[in-house]
Amino acid sequence: MRIEDSPSPAVDYSRVFNQAIDRLHAEGRYRVFIDILRNKGAYPNARCFAGHNGPKPITVWCSNDYLAMGQHPKVIAAMEEALHDVGAGSGGTRNIGGNTHYHIELELELADLHGKQGALIFTSGYVSNEATLATLGKILPGCIIYSDELNHASMIAGIRNSGCDKRVFRHNDLAHLEELLAADDPASPKLIAFESVYSMDADIAPIAEICDLADKYNALTYLDEVHAVGMYGARGGGISERDGIAERLTIIEGTLGKAFGVMGGYITADQTIIDVIRSYAPGFIFTTSLSPVLVAGALASVRHLKGSTAEREGQQAAATKLKAIMAEAGLPVMNSTTHIVPLMVGDPVKAKKISDILLAEYGVYVQPINYPTVPRGTERLRFTPGPAHDEGMMRELVDALSEIWGRLELRKAA
Amino acid sequence: MRIEDSPSPAVDYSRVFNQAIDRLHAEGRYRVFIDILRNKGAYPNARCFAGHNGPKPITVWCSNDYLAMGQHPKVIAAMEEALHDVGAGSGGTRNIGGNTHYHIELELELADLHGKQGALIFTSGYVSNEATLATLGKILPGCIIYSDELNHASMIAGIRNSGCDKRVFRHNDLAHLEELLAADDPASPKLIAFESVYSMDADIAPIAEICDLADKYNALTYLDEVHAVGMYGARGGGISERDGIAERLTIIEGTLGKAFGVMGGYITADQTIIDVIRSYAPGFIFTTSLSPVLVAGALASVRHLKGSTAEREGQQAAATKLKAIMAEAGLPVMNSTTHIVPLMVGDPVKAKKISDILLAEYGVYVQPINYPTVPRGTERLRFTPGPAHDEGMMRELVDALSEIWGRLELRKAA
Repeated sequence: MRIEDSPSPAVDYSRVFNQAIDRLHAEGRYRVFIDILRNKGAYPNARCFAGHNGPKPITVWCSNDYLAMGQHPKVIAAMEEALHDVGAGSGGTRNIGGNTHYHIELELELADLHGKQGALIFTSGYVSNEATLATLGKILPGCIIYSDELNHASMIAGIRNSGCDKRVFRHNDLAHLEELLAADDPASPKLIAFESVYSMDADIAPIAEICDLADKYNALTYLDEVHAVGMYGARGGGISERDGIAERLTIIEGTLGKAFGVMGGYITADQTIIDVIRSYAPGFIFTTSLSPVLVAGALASVRHLKGSTAEREGQQAAATKLKAIMAEAGLPVMNSTTHIVPLMVGDPVKAKKISDILLAEYGVYVQPINYPTVPRGTERLRFTPGPAHDEGMMRELVDALSEIWGRLELRKAA
Repeated sequence: MRIEDSPSPAVDYSRVFNQAIDRLHAEGRYRVFIDILRNKGAYPNARCFAGHNGPKPITVWCSNDYLAMGQHPKVIAAMEEALHDVGAGSGGTRNIGGNTHYHIELELELADLHGKQGALIFTSGYVSNEATLATLGKILPGCIIYSDELNHASMIAGIRNSGCDKRVFRHNDLAHLEELLAADDPASPKLIAFESVYSMDADIAPIAEICDLADKYNALTYLDEVHAVGMYGARGGGISERDGIAERLTIIEGTLGKAFGVMGGYITADQTIIDVIRSYAPGFIFTTSLSPVLVAGALASVRHLKGSTAEREGQQAAATKLKAIMAEAGLPVMNSTTHIVPLMVGDPVKAKKISDILLAEYGVYVQPINYPTVPRGTERLRFTPGPAHDEGMMRELVDALSEIWGRLELRKAA
């Protein structure tokens, strides 16, 4: 049945769906996807197809391909080789025809990256979080999950789908976490789920102290390092590698789609846990495995970043420089201890307006970040400078922002 | 905390996880992933890495790359071009930097394939089912979802996560479905969720009659065509195209990872529904978009199969031939009206044993299908002959099966 054909005034599907869309427009957070193609070898340059004047050149400031590894010659070569060797897709689930030698090699490489016994690849980071947390909760009867209030939507989905009792602790607040742990039955299984780098606030969790609490209260730990893998630690193992505490975490989760430049997600842990998730998680079992072409690209990327530090150093230098130039210009750059540079706006309509002007008048692409990605009232622009963003680009960006800040009479930094 | 370090005898995590694994061994359904690489251009030939004697040649009989499009020169060329044009990954969510011109083109092509206003691509068919059904249920307050008892795990997950009341109807049983529809309040929103081709039983739903019931009871319909797209209908639009009733379905869901040979999933529907799912589904919003390399490959595959019928005809001829040869040999081939050829075994240990002998002694790869993919007691082998499986391969396969059937004293067809 088409929704407009509903014969019953009692259930007017078309009206209900249109009201859902109207709510987004009314709040100024209806999303328009801009239509772009990146130029391989010339990142952060890209082409934008918006409007009717054909592709126009833009500079991308909001990609999560943080180190431009999606353009790296080794990654491209590995993918091309796999494409010609085995073809496009895997043709099946991991259990039914879709387990290739590339998958096995990548899992060994990722386990080594985090110093764990085993690893398991998923089709995305979202699925790895959802499937793992939901399954762990079901395997451990009576488990209580302690979740940082700013955890990613995929972790929230996994925790909800686990059916476990959930305790939400204030962001990075150790005292609150301990208060919650101490209040529960010592005989209950417990799991603390948190991230290392929080992508939208650009801050870092006190991982060692959370591990201390986990030891004290006999809790397992689940650390999402998607905004850190490839970028922190001597071999790109994330904040847990940088701080020398990877072995203290029960499970470390990461992505192949951000700094590694490809697509897919993974977990690493003791072999027993990997075996449990592999055997019980519907989101892993009942899905076509990651294309071997992507797996080959990710393998080349992970291996390269284990040995090369130039990309990480270039990114840190670029982030430090951009934060300094923005602060100098009086722009309200948020306090960031990471490579992510968020600029607070605090209003969804204004955030979108700034982004629209940047694209239309300056050829700068940065997406406004609105609810539900961040809480209402904290809408922002989020810049991700990388090794390929040079000082000239930064000066152009900050000059443009300063002009727009004046034009729209926006609040400057205190 | 490592799981073996638990200080508390009250919560011995290691024991709980090991017990979960032990249960699988005890039931004979612990899964071992075989390690293969397909040979592009020579499908269904592949190499198997199992054992210690290096890669050995095998024939694959259980791939869901049903038409070998994962090896098609047009698909490979399109992926290679995209790889060199834009790079490996998309670098972001659809909303934040990850919306490429390829995605927009593929969505237009898929909407056209099913005669719908719009389409939306997901990272997998699993995610498209889970995200769409869960979100529809949340947007329609008080909605009741009617679900075929053999629906795929991803639909079951989506329905559960929607929070809606669920009614399970007996497989393809119209009388039971109507009984359930008639018993509910006419003023409640309703959604009937079902598949066209059921992958494990190889039968087809009475789609037109289900649409009649939907009209009568003012229900929306959600049809999963993942085992039909590319393979049925004049342009590969699935059973709903073959039967000329695509316009009667509210939502048609499909995959890019089976007959289209690549990876990913999608829905097609009225633009309003697409806009609602695009705007509200966490599994769509909060994940890196499908790699443009995969999208380019899928686009080439969908376009090719819209115009070419040779692959579909070759597949149907191969399936008819294999079913006839198996029946002639007295093998218990299940009643199949589709391209899928299941052979009933009815025991998980025996199903695995047959599969192990086929691989070790005959170089034939077919995976045993055990619980939870099929109900306990209905374990089977599932063959997916395609246009590239010739009669010589079929004779070899059936001779091998006949020998093993005798050796293991298995039950033959009545």
